[in-house]
Amino acid sequence: MPADAQKAVFAARTTVEQVEEGSELAPRFDAEGLIPAVTTDADSGEVLMLGYMNAEALALTISTGEAHYWSRSRRCLWHKGATSGLVQTVVELRIDDDQDAVWLRVRISGGASCHVGYRSCFYRSVPLGDEAGTALRFMEPEKAFDPREVYGDAPNPTRL
Amino acid sequence: MPADAQKAVFAARTTVEQVEEGSELAPRFDAEGLIPAVTTDADSGEVLMLGYMNAEALALTISTGEAHYWSRSRRCLWHKGATSGLVQTVVELRIDDDQDAVWLRVRISGGASCHVGYRSCFYRSVPLGDEAGTALRFMEPEKAFDPREVYGDAPNPTRL
Repeated sequence: MPADAQKAVFAARTTVEQVEEGSELAPRFDAEGLIPAVTTDADSGEVLMLGYMNAEALALTISTGEAHYWSRSRRCLWHKGATSGLVQTVVELRIDDDQDAVWLRVRISGGASCHVGYRSCFYRSVPLGDEAGTALRFMEPEKAFDPREVYGDAPNPTRL
Repeated sequence: MPADAQKAVFAARTTVEQVEEGSELAPRFDAEGLIPAVTTDADSGEVLMLGYMNAEALALTISTGEAHYWSRSRRCLWHKGATSGLVQTVVELRIDDDQDAVWLRVRISGGASCHVGYRSCFYRSVPLGDEAGTALRFMEPEKAFDPREVYGDAPNPTRL
């Protein structure tokens, strides 16, 4: 994306009041040029994934209404669903108080968004309190799709 | 927290299969020792905030059932609500596929969680598509509390 196009979308950050109380979009990207993006199902409210966007991905998400991210493992712009078909249509995009995080409410085609095959990436619950340290609990009865059929031999993005 | 206590809670990361399909909690902290935490209202599903936890904050959240974060601006452990009284009681804690993000479903005392005074930190909506570049829209009709009354002269955590 040309720098001019990004300038047209994003304002410079000048004061705390402007950032917190103003109506200009002035996002803060971190040292790697990224802003975290929380993605929820627009209907159920379920958190589907936590991704990251660079300036281009955020600008494309705003202009197209489809979620674009920056893939940290593949180090490339990532139009979600380009490989899997599981496109995310953005119903609403919100920015937080200090404008260093965004929240996308989306509708997902195909009913899933996790590369492991589950509906949500957050498919395991961590026991708390007296049960701390016991086994994680799987919260989805089964996978929504078979990742081998969708992704084939593509490298797994999980890093140890 | 003693290193022994953290070892008892967190498993070492050995294989992709263990991390993605296993029932051991083996979180991945970034180069700064942090893991991002998405916090939603357990009843409404609304995203309240995106915070960060170090190993101690995550272990304390698990053992106490109250949300603890690492404050990146103040560089200290942050028991949410210790200053404001707006404690977050964790109803459920989930971890994502590659275990580098957590999702907390919480109940908030006082009905608010944002230092600016709103219920959610994500109180502004970004216009999309044909309306891209127009003014952000404020989605909460009014602030839930007056931050000057709650925080007094404490420094504002927002960084430009």
